[in-house]
Amino acid sequence: MEDIDAPEFSAPFRDDFETLLRWRRDVRRFRADPLPNGTIGRLLELADLAPSVGNSQPWRIVLVESAEARARVTACFEEENAAAAREYDDETAQHYRALKLAGLREAPVHLAVFCDEDPEQGHGLGRSTMPETLSYSTVSMIHTFWLAARTEGIGVGWVSILDPATVGEILDVDASWRLVAYLCVGYPEEEHIDPELERLRWQSRSPLKSRLFRR
Amino acid sequence: MEDIDAPEFSAPFRDDFETLLRWRRDVRRFRADPLPNGTIGRLLELADLAPSVGNSQPWRIVLVESAEARARVTACFEEENAAAAREYDDETAQHYRALKLAGLREAPVHLAVFCDEDPEQGHGLGRSTMPETLSYSTVSMIHTFWLAARTEGIGVGWVSILDPATVGEILDVDASWRLVAYLCVGYPEEEHIDPELERLRWQSRSPLKSRLFRR
Repeated sequence: MEDIDAPEFSAPFRDDFETLLRWRRDVRRFRADPLPNGTIGRLLELADLAPSVGNSQPWRIVLVESAEARARVTACFEEENAAAAREYDDETAQHYRALKLAGLREAPVHLAVFCDEDPEQGHGLGRSTMPETLSYSTVSMIHTFWLAARTEGIGVGWVSILDPATVGEILDVDASWRLVAYLCVGYPEEEHIDPELERLRWQSRSPLKSRLFRR
Repeated sequence: MEDIDAPEFSAPFRDDFETLLRWRRDVRRFRADPLPNGTIGRLLELADLAPSVGNSQPWRIVLVESAEARARVTACFEEENAAAAREYDDETAQHYRALKLAGLREAPVHLAVFCDEDPEQGHGLGRSTMPETLSYSTVSMIHTFWLAARTEGIGVGWVSILDPATVGEILDVDASWRLVAYLCVGYPEEEHIDPELERLRWQSRSPLKSRLFRR
């Protein structure tokens, strides 16, 4: 392609893009109704445009459809979530247990996203000193999917309270794949501009300036 | 916030969002002119809306302004890039050396993005089995920044051909911070819809279906 037709984004587009970022949300409360046919495929095609180190596209996406696999992943979450609660003191553990941290039972779509730790594609470019850029690429894909879903009113919840190796075994994937995220996808039951962890007084955001430095 | 005022995104917005994803690009060819005052701060405020595990916001952002620090990071890149080239066979190494993989000398803005590996914020929620979700959160912030920059016609290039520990030493940051990305930021010298690695025949994208599985 030549140096032509580069888009300019309008001020209204930029305003709506900011709205998208503000309303993205990690969703844990889903309606059970299915997504329209073709929706997940279309969103994944957009997500597949994400940046990747050396153009390696190392993400491996598993649509988890079998009731048995879903039930085993849900059990894995419940076990790890109970274990995590036990790490806190009594008062904090009580607060933790009252949080709803995943919508695995309700969400119509489960996606397990893995990273291939040594893909041929990309010929190793860009990852010799930082091999973790492969999983970082996979995160960019997931984040793109998340935003694209939200533009259609679809919620995504990222479940990380899982043993990655156990999920790999349940789904019988290649041993060289590492679980990056397990995603619940569906229409949200509620809409909020504030994160649930903030609303339920677990953790609020803090000002950016505390994270900014100059050298 | 109550269940009110949730935005609906229009079809034209979704079309423009797809255009944004298609034209994002990893930029290595920058014009040297500075960005307007306040631009980086505004983009970082948008990026700070990114998802983070337990709402921990573990990203630590260093604006690298000193000529000495920039020169040392550039030297680090050049050394690691030469080392990476030596790992390929002769023909591939020649191809590799002809690629321009960073715009460190030209880009008006350098941002080093680190991840705090044990932040107090978030109280550990969501990361006991997958501590790497902290660096994944940081990647979501970087990717948000990248997209937000592109909506204003500003290019971002992610430089990963660096020794992360050396960059931490050059910038004299806390030993518990891990380098996630070193970003070059500025106006692109050229606009392209296709990735440079594809245009220069290093690596093309491949079809999504090869990365999709069902269980």
